[in-house]
Amino acid sequence: MDVQHNVLKLRRMGINAQNEYLVFMRKDCPVCTSEGFEALNRIKITKDKVTIVASLIVWDNVQLGHDQLCLTEAAIDALGANEGDLLLLSHLDALDSMSDVRKKIYGHRLNQNEFDRIIRDVVNRNLSNIQLSAFLSSCTGDSLNKEEVIALTRSMINVGFKLDWGEKKVYDKHCIGGLPGNRTTPLVVSIAAAAGLIIPKTSSRAITSPAGTADTMEVMTNVNLTTAQMKKVVEKEGGCLAWGGSVQLSPADDILIRVEKALDIDSEGQMIASVLSKKAAAGSTDVVIDIPVGPTAKVRSQETAEQLSEKMVVVGKAIGLNIEIILTDGSQPVGRGIGPALEAQDILAVLRNEDDAPDDLRKRAITLAGRLLEMSGKAGKGSGEGKALQILAEGQAHKKFIAICEAQGYFREPGLAEFKFKVKANINGRISEIDNRKLAKLAKLAGAPSAITAGVLLYTSLGTQVKPDDILYEIHAESQGELEYALSYLDAQKDIIKINES
Amino acid sequence: MDVQHNVLKLRRMGINAQNEYLVFMRKDCPVCTSEGFEALNRIKITKDKVTIVASLIVWDNVQLGHDQLCLTEAAIDALGANEGDLLLLSHLDALDSMSDVRKKIYGHRLNQNEFDRIIRDVVNRNLSNIQLSAFLSSCTGDSLNKEEVIALTRSMINVGFKLDWGEKKVYDKHCIGGLPGNRTTPLVVSIAAAAGLIIPKTSSRAITSPAGTADTMEVMTNVNLTTAQMKKVVEKEGGCLAWGGSVQLSPADDILIRVEKALDIDSEGQMIASVLSKKAAAGSTDVVIDIPVGPTAKVRSQETAEQLSEKMVVVGKAIGLNIEIILTDGSQPVGRGIGPALEAQDILAVLRNEDDAPDDLRKRAITLAGRLLEMSGKAGKGSGEGKALQILAEGQAHKKFIAICEAQGYFREPGLAEFKFKVKANINGRISEIDNRKLAKLAKLAGAPSAITAGVLLYTSLGTQVKPDDILYEIHAESQGELEYALSYLDAQKDIIKINES
Repeated sequence: MDVQHNVLKLRRMGINAQNEYLVFMRKDCPVCTSEGFEALNRIKITKDKVTIVASLIVWDNVQLGHDQLCLTEAAIDALGANEGDLLLLSHLDALDSMSDVRKKIYGHRLNQNEFDRIIRDVVNRNLSNIQLSAFLSSCTGDSLNKEEVIALTRSMINVGFKLDWGEKKVYDKHCIGGLPGNRTTPLVVSIAAAAGLIIPKTSSRAITSPAGTADTMEVMTNVNLTTAQMKKVVEKEGGCLAWGGSVQLSPADDILIRVEKALDIDSEGQMIASVLSKKAAAGSTDVVIDIPVGPTAKVRSQETAEQLSEKMVVVGKAIGLNIEIILTDGSQPVGRGIGPALEAQDILAVLRNEDDAPDDLRKRAITLAGRLLEMSGKAGKGSGEGKALQILAEGQAHKKFIAICEAQGYFREPGLAEFKFKVKANINGRISEIDNRKLAKLAKLAGAPSAITAGVLLYTSLGTQVKPDDILYEIHAESQGELEYALSYLDAQKDIIKINES
Repeated sequence: MDVQHNVLKLRRMGINAQNEYLVFMRKDCPVCTSEGFEALNRIKITKDKVTIVASLIVWDNVQLGHDQLCLTEAAIDALGANEGDLLLLSHLDALDSMSDVRKKIYGHRLNQNEFDRIIRDVVNRNLSNIQLSAFLSSCTGDSLNKEEVIALTRSMINVGFKLDWGEKKVYDKHCIGGLPGNRTTPLVVSIAAAAGLIIPKTSSRAITSPAGTADTMEVMTNVNLTTAQMKKVVEKEGGCLAWGGSVQLSPADDILIRVEKALDIDSEGQMIASVLSKKAAAGSTDVVIDIPVGPTAKVRSQETAEQLSEKMVVVGKAIGLNIEIILTDGSQPVGRGIGPALEAQDILAVLRNEDDAPDDLRKRAITLAGRLLEMSGKAGKGSGEGKALQILAEGQAHKKFIAICEAQGYFREPGLAEFKFKVKANINGRISEIDNRKLAKLAKLAGAPSAITAGVLLYTSLGTQVKPDDILYEIHAESQGELEYALSYLDAQKDIIKINES
């Protein structure tokens, strides 16, 4: 067929639709007319030897010529295209991977080849969000058996970048389901590295929360490390605290997680594959996993936690990972600060053994680090926590933390926000409830995480006795406008922290 | 909260994304910045008392001001907004219906209330395509039991417009799964109405095929009738042949079908709910349903067809519909023409009892109309087909057809395309295979259905003996350009019609 029928000229307009590629064309352009394309059709777009698939948005815009099309920026990058380039458009043939997805939708088992095909098309963005949603929906609950979770995990490892540390034993830690302020990672890495373990840790930035571990670390040091830079830091200090985003350990997961969030579904199998594929890709061999259990945590019952633990250990073994699970208390936030700099303050207070350092955060870090020390043989069974506490108390963890930061570029003290507002108790009583979700929202409205010193500083915890004018929490912001924005939300809320009158 | 934080000005740019509402904002506009909105977030948009939900596309376009947003046309219509209007933006709270969807994803049964909640949010477009996909994926195969299909059907009826004919018995026909050229509807309606039945038929336009019944009827008469106009036509003639699109009988289905198409999944329960909700909303009481069964038809085996039939009858009964099913041969196209005017020619040839009228089309229409006559008591058991044939042969059906067309506005003869190309046999042999999919594509490339006289005219059927230079089929087009476009596709294809050499 004559190629000229199917060519349009790229016009770049700075459009971003997250993970999905979109193409914009006029309904009356020659390609739509002759090919019969209509909105939401999946269309192949080719430049030289690169082909991508995009969903069509029809655009009857006078600003777009009959011979032009627009693409989202991610699609333009993937094609390596420039303004004015001629792009070839064609119908997308049925994808083999969609047969596999349909097979799963209809409740059948998938094998390694089928998962490979799906995950390859996920990474190549050949599947639309509608199709990804169908795949994820069909993998929920217990619809993936152990063999399938193992196969899915392998598929996800295969499409990502893999780090090689040239070491026999590489340690890691992970926490399932964020508990506000549960920023144990920098502490665990510092203790473990101080004890001589190799622990090259990558963390994520906040997606919906007021801070991710990478955001918090960025307050104190540089976290944007290349793989080569990470290697250097780990060679020197045994550990690192880097942002995982630049390393592309699990590109499939980065795409799937957006759709899972939109559905607010939790596929157990998908989650195990996501976590373990990242650990394997990071080159880890021995991993301790923290599962907070509590009524408002991700995992709500001891029974669910135990089933999940068992599956993770089995799948880990199949892909060569030695996994140990610790179930922890997930009933209330950890530490005092919510927001990058405020959480950094908590971490430094624990490392510096300050008197008012949050004890819950310290204890959790000791538990996790202690287990790593036992797994590595640096401590005998039952004496890991003691050893970890010793490393922390004697200042070796603090020294290691500063050394890691400096190896990553520099260490700097967290700043303090200029604009603050104290929320006080107005009655005598005992703290009976803390709404974590609303506290997190308050911190975000005040500017966290992009305003790094913004957030919420807690002065109380569950069960504390308070009297009128006692400070419950303090809102921190970097501008008067942002503070007021948070306060106008606060005005509309009742009882973010509930006091039982006494 | 101060409303001014969350307001942007509408800029209209003629964007169409099918059923989904999209909103375009700059990443650095004050609303994205303060609310933390990011691409694909679901956002509530309010004007006066109307609120819709749209998915965010982030747009770093110099052409869009910091105080502006764009919306897809459907979203603008739904809001009743105009260029320059100030629109209020806010976060979407979790939808109750998504809890119901998740319940289904996890394999639980849904009750009437839960389906009602989901379908209400479908119609109000509160659910994104990602969420619709999850719902549809969770309803595939046999995951809906009879009670659930009945509940879903009722939910779909409740959100649509319902026609009331003030008659005890209102007849209808429906065909599951389009067979090319199977344009029996105008014939069945004409015969049934001529016999005195009330049969107010609404049909669809082509979605992916070269012609829908509404496209074909539009060649000969006006099909864009208001409900009041339909009533008048039916009062006068007993039947009508209108386009269903303006009547909004099943708005939920119109939205869901787009996503089903993107997934290429066939949810049996969803399909039954879709068909029967439309029939009930159309005010029908007695419906004959044609299920073509064949290796390339939608329903491929006798067994599947029988299970489907049984379910349709049971669900129909529950919502007050008397349903009879006829399983027909679905192994090859029906009639000679593919394309609006060419199919209209076939219909008129049958109505006029012309010698070369396609016999397969006539026979199928007689079977369906005969069953309706028996259901109504106009013919005794076993004598329906005879009666239908008599009505056709004596010219009463033709007279009724013309009368219905005139009541709808006018009757006009189908035209004939100016540009034609004959595809001929080059060997002696017997027709062994006809690729319906490729013939349909050829008809569409030649311009059908928007070029109404374009399409393909078949000169042969399976088993016909041909010799070199015998015409196999003829491509019709309204312009030389479109004809050439079809021919360039033809060049690249081998054996759209296969001949076994003899």
